[in-house]
Amino acid sequence: MAKTIAVNAGSSTLKFQLFDMPSEKVIAKGLVDRIGLAEGSFTISYGDGEHFKLEQPFKDHKVAISILLKELIDLKIIDSFDEITGVGHRVVAGGEFFKDSVVINDDVLAKIDSLAEYAPLHNPANATGIRAFREVLPDATAVAVFDTSFHTTMPEENYLYSIPYEYYEKFGARRYGAHGTSHRYVSHRAAEILGQPLDQMKIITLHLGAGASIAAIENGKSIDTSMGFTPLAGITMATRSGDIDVSLVTFLQQKLGVTNPEAMIDMLNKKSGLLGISGISGDMRDLENSDEHRAKLAIEIFINRIVKYVGSYIAEMGGVDALVFTAGIGENAPEIRAAITDAFNFMGIKIDAERNNVRGKETVISTDDSTAKVVLVPTDEELMIARDVERLSK
Amino acid sequence: MAKTIAVNAGSSTLKFQLFDMPSEKVIAKGLVDRIGLAEGSFTISYGDGEHFKLEQPFKDHKVAISILLKELIDLKIIDSFDEITGVGHRVVAGGEFFKDSVVINDDVLAKIDSLAEYAPLHNPANATGIRAFREVLPDATAVAVFDTSFHTTMPEENYLYSIPYEYYEKFGARRYGAHGTSHRYVSHRAAEILGQPLDQMKIITLHLGAGASIAAIENGKSIDTSMGFTPLAGITMATRSGDIDVSLVTFLQQKLGVTNPEAMIDMLNKKSGLLGISGISGDMRDLENSDEHRAKLAIEIFINRIVKYVGSYIAEMGGVDALVFTAGIGENAPEIRAAITDAFNFMGIKIDAERNNVRGKETVISTDDSTAKVVLVPTDEELMIARDVERLSK
Repeated sequence: MAKTIAVNAGSSTLKFQLFDMPSEKVIAKGLVDRIGLAEGSFTISYGDGEHFKLEQPFKDHKVAISILLKELIDLKIIDSFDEITGVGHRVVAGGEFFKDSVVINDDVLAKIDSLAEYAPLHNPANATGIRAFREVLPDATAVAVFDTSFHTTMPEENYLYSIPYEYYEKFGARRYGAHGTSHRYVSHRAAEILGQPLDQMKIITLHLGAGASIAAIENGKSIDTSMGFTPLAGITMATRSGDIDVSLVTFLQQKLGVTNPEAMIDMLNKKSGLLGISGISGDMRDLENSDEHRAKLAIEIFINRIVKYVGSYIAEMGGVDALVFTAGIGENAPEIRAAITDAFNFMGIKIDAERNNVRGKETVISTDDSTAKVVLVPTDEELMIARDVERLSK
Repeated sequence: MAKTIAVNAGSSTLKFQLFDMPSEKVIAKGLVDRIGLAEGSFTISYGDGEHFKLEQPFKDHKVAISILLKELIDLKIIDSFDEITGVGHRVVAGGEFFKDSVVINDDVLAKIDSLAEYAPLHNPANATGIRAFREVLPDATAVAVFDTSFHTTMPEENYLYSIPYEYYEKFGARRYGAHGTSHRYVSHRAAEILGQPLDQMKIITLHLGAGASIAAIENGKSIDTSMGFTPLAGITMATRSGDIDVSLVTFLQQKLGVTNPEAMIDMLNKKSGLLGISGISGDMRDLENSDEHRAKLAIEIFINRIVKYVGSYIAEMGGVDALVFTAGIGENAPEIRAAITDAFNFMGIKIDAERNNVRGKETVISTDDSTAKVVLVPTDEELMIARDVERLSK
């Protein structure tokens, strides 16, 4: 049987999911954590709810992948490495090169390396994962699936910033967006669930996780998205600020006596968002359980920024047929979904309280007479990656 | 007769308008330009279309004001300084102190000085103008009218950024907005023109000049506005970028080998916006007369960003009763007004082509069946300043 492994390599992690294809059945999924650190761990679930955990150091991604593959055999999940005919890698930044997923060759790998400046934390880790799998599974078809590809259909008035045009030409300074694989997956699924033609729909997808972004999808194509040149921009996130006035950076640098502007970007990425406002946590669950004013305020701001982006995309598309909620908060926070949707009651978009009382399940949560459908679609980037491997292997 | 002079002091300019109050008749208006430079000029128009121009250096604001007042006598516009009983000063940054215009005393002036860090180009010039008029007209009631006051009614979820809360507490890092006097004036006028109660309306005001901002005004109060901590944020402007991903600053700094982040802010203030995109001009008229792709693109981006902000404010307020256009582009570019309004045809907001074929005139330009009124109101910040002097002198 042909199997495909979907891989998401971070700087010290390796998430994976093994599919039987084309049945799309998940055979195993797991995580190698704390790669390169003194105490690492490998966890995998498979079969009928079986789990296995191994605690040991993993020197690097190559070691992690070797052990992962060895355990697939030892745990009798596969009989031989030859069964894994496809490897799909999540890659964060594809720049303007990669408008679709692509079979990886040396040229592709070199381009992924060269795009590291657009995603300094992610692309090098992604490339490490690709190289490690290439060595261990040289005969499998390796495919790169980019977070940015889905957004390469944005028109130039939406991807350009209002800065000197030469910075776009010379340095690629533009909006790229992210979470593209998720926005693509949930928009496709939403159209299927609704039985409507994706290529004639106006959809707004809300990927609300620790990282969060919103996309305007017209006729199946992303025409705008809230993340920008990097995933720092857009709506309020767990620890990321989203949009702020750039002048604040120089102002705060002076106030704080910080000379390195990258320290400011780091603060905006890691100490801001829900965490920065609340002072308590970047995790929505913690805030929902708190009575503190600033916890409530953080939730209000989160909702407010989302409502404003959704409103701006409705205006940009001249209407909307479906709002699609996904990712951690989008799938599991009925009250947040209700608050966002209620803001659009004025234009006839209405959520059904009972239908909305659900977590992590594909379902329509709007009322029957709502002027736009509201849909909950658990995201499945791994499946999308496996499908792309399947499609491009042919 | 009691007269009030409205003053807008820039770093090297002094704009003024002299009113007879309470009749609000404009007796004279003019400009002292290039103060402190080798070649200055003073221009004034008065009476029945009479003009006077003087070319000479003006050492500082005090000299400029002395000559301005002397000319008012020499040109027989007034008979004596005593006639000027009120002086209203535009002040850009009022921080959180000034929720309304205020009669200037030493304490107020000290606060205006201390707020200079929020508007380093403007507040010191405003304070200079205040001091110079105090010396020359010590008995007149001096009133400060702040660009930010009208926006102090914003709720905290709209004025706070998603950054560590302590930066708001310690340093006042928040959204202040600007153009408040204009947004206030045109929203009031629009309600009067429409014969509707301002305190029950949802209004979006579009101040579209070289600097440009949009405000959401609910029941007469500003609840949100596009400019932020400084006037750099928001929509695309003549030479200002409006909103961008903050990460672009560090990225471009590295690419350009710029070590001083303030040089980046300067680039975003002075070389970006319509000028930066088009490479031709920051003046909308030049772009409208150009066949270049990038000129058309700059206009498209300008319209796109406005449409998105308007859409976001409609969502935030749960509807809109009136869109109000003002300032240079808003008053004089029918095609831009039409393009912005047409984006909201989907919700029944419609412009009447013939009514819209007008410049600089108070008029309703929507169709009779439009779901929201669209109104053109030439802004008059000077009148608003004079009225505030009148109100606070009592």
